[in-house]
Amino acid sequence: MPQGQPSVVPDDGLTTRQRRNRPLVLVHTGPGKGKSTAAFGLALRAWNQGWPVGVFQFVKSAKWKVGEERALRVLGDTGEGGTVAWHKMGEGWSWVQRDSQFSNEEAAREGWEQVKRDLAAETYKLYVLDEFAYPMHWGWVDPAEVVSVLRDRPGHQHVVITGRNAPQELCDVADLVTEMTKVKHPMDAGQKGQRGIEW
Amino acid sequence: MPQGQPSVVPDDGLTTRQRRNRPLVLVHTGPGKGKSTAAFGLALRAWNQGWPVGVFQFVKSAKWKVGEERALRVLGDTGEGGTVAWHKMGEGWSWVQRDSQFSNEEAAREGWEQVKRDLAAETYKLYVLDEFAYPMHWGWVDPAEVVSVLRDRPGHQHVVITGRNAPQELCDVADLVTEMTKVKHPMDAGQKGQRGIEW
Repeated sequence: MPQGQPSVVPDDGLTTRQRRNRPLVLVHTGPGKGKSTAAFGLALRAWNQGWPVGVFQFVKSAKWKVGEERALRVLGDTGEGGTVAWHKMGEGWSWVQRDSQFSNEEAAREGWEQVKRDLAAETYKLYVLDEFAYPMHWGWVDPAEVVSVLRDRPGHQHVVITGRNAPQELCDVADLVTEMTKVKHPMDAGQKGQRGIEW
Repeated sequence: MPQGQPSVVPDDGLTTRQRRNRPLVLVHTGPGKGKSTAAFGLALRAWNQGWPVGVFQFVKSAKWKVGEERALRVLGDTGEGGTVAWHKMGEGWSWVQRDSQFSNEEAAREGWEQVKRDLAAETYKLYVLDEFAYPMHWGWVDPAEVVSVLRDRPGHQHVVITGRNAPQELCDVADLVTEMTKVKHPMDAGQKGQRGIEW
């Protein structure tokens, strides 16, 4: 990958170093594969920089992404890079009492409340909000509030958000938006998900 | 991510289990970000399955992807999952004599020759051929030969190939093709690549 030259140098009074080190909001959206895997790939870079990484999985099923979870937990535990905290909605958020009876909507909102608390406390340097586009798309979490919280987040915290149908107002405020487009998928040929590839 | 149901059940005489366990060719192409990071995210799943993973980086610069490299090397060394072998064209392939003077074209071809040898020997269960679309696009490695080798590869070996401009004949033979589309990129706003995000 070539080291790209910016085509425009913005008139924002920042030095290149300041601009380079700006905390980013990244969005991986679209119907294709790779939205979450690319986010976890990014987490490897963050780990290598020694950054504390916080993963929030806004999905119901705990089956998926066990590979990424175990790999990142093992990495976090080596002490050779950053720490990794992994929070799953599917099993009830780790900070929530076991016997809480949340609907999916309430659980998604509770996840977002914790993200807000962590952003305010500057708990992590990289936040992976996996599948967080869905609760916004479904109206469970207000995109306008997300945009406002992200805009005003303190310090130097990167946030990557994945999921189809990312709201336009989120994309407007994001620094990078990648759309994963499905060109061809094994399921089209009647193939089911398989171990090691889909999870 | 919901556990998708195939829309078509092919009339290929295979059971679901056989179809599920078919070795795959995956292509991540397009101008957007996330092609390689998603491939390395996949490698986490393979590692978690205990699969031997072989990474071949067909790029000149050794600067990029140091985060993924270190993370996957550390994971491979834990013994808690699969092994990881990481081969870089940029520093001269590990199996090539130090004083060899290869042009980029020769080096790319030499990398492909080793991939062929490893496929024949069934050395790995997941091959990450990072940025391998470029040498094909540039005519250094014949896509028709790649297609033929991938089609006839023995055993159960998954191959993921990344890079812009993946040749059509490769996409035709691939099981999954995802195109990463650039919707918005920090460099458009004059931002340069930054540590922990770009490498």
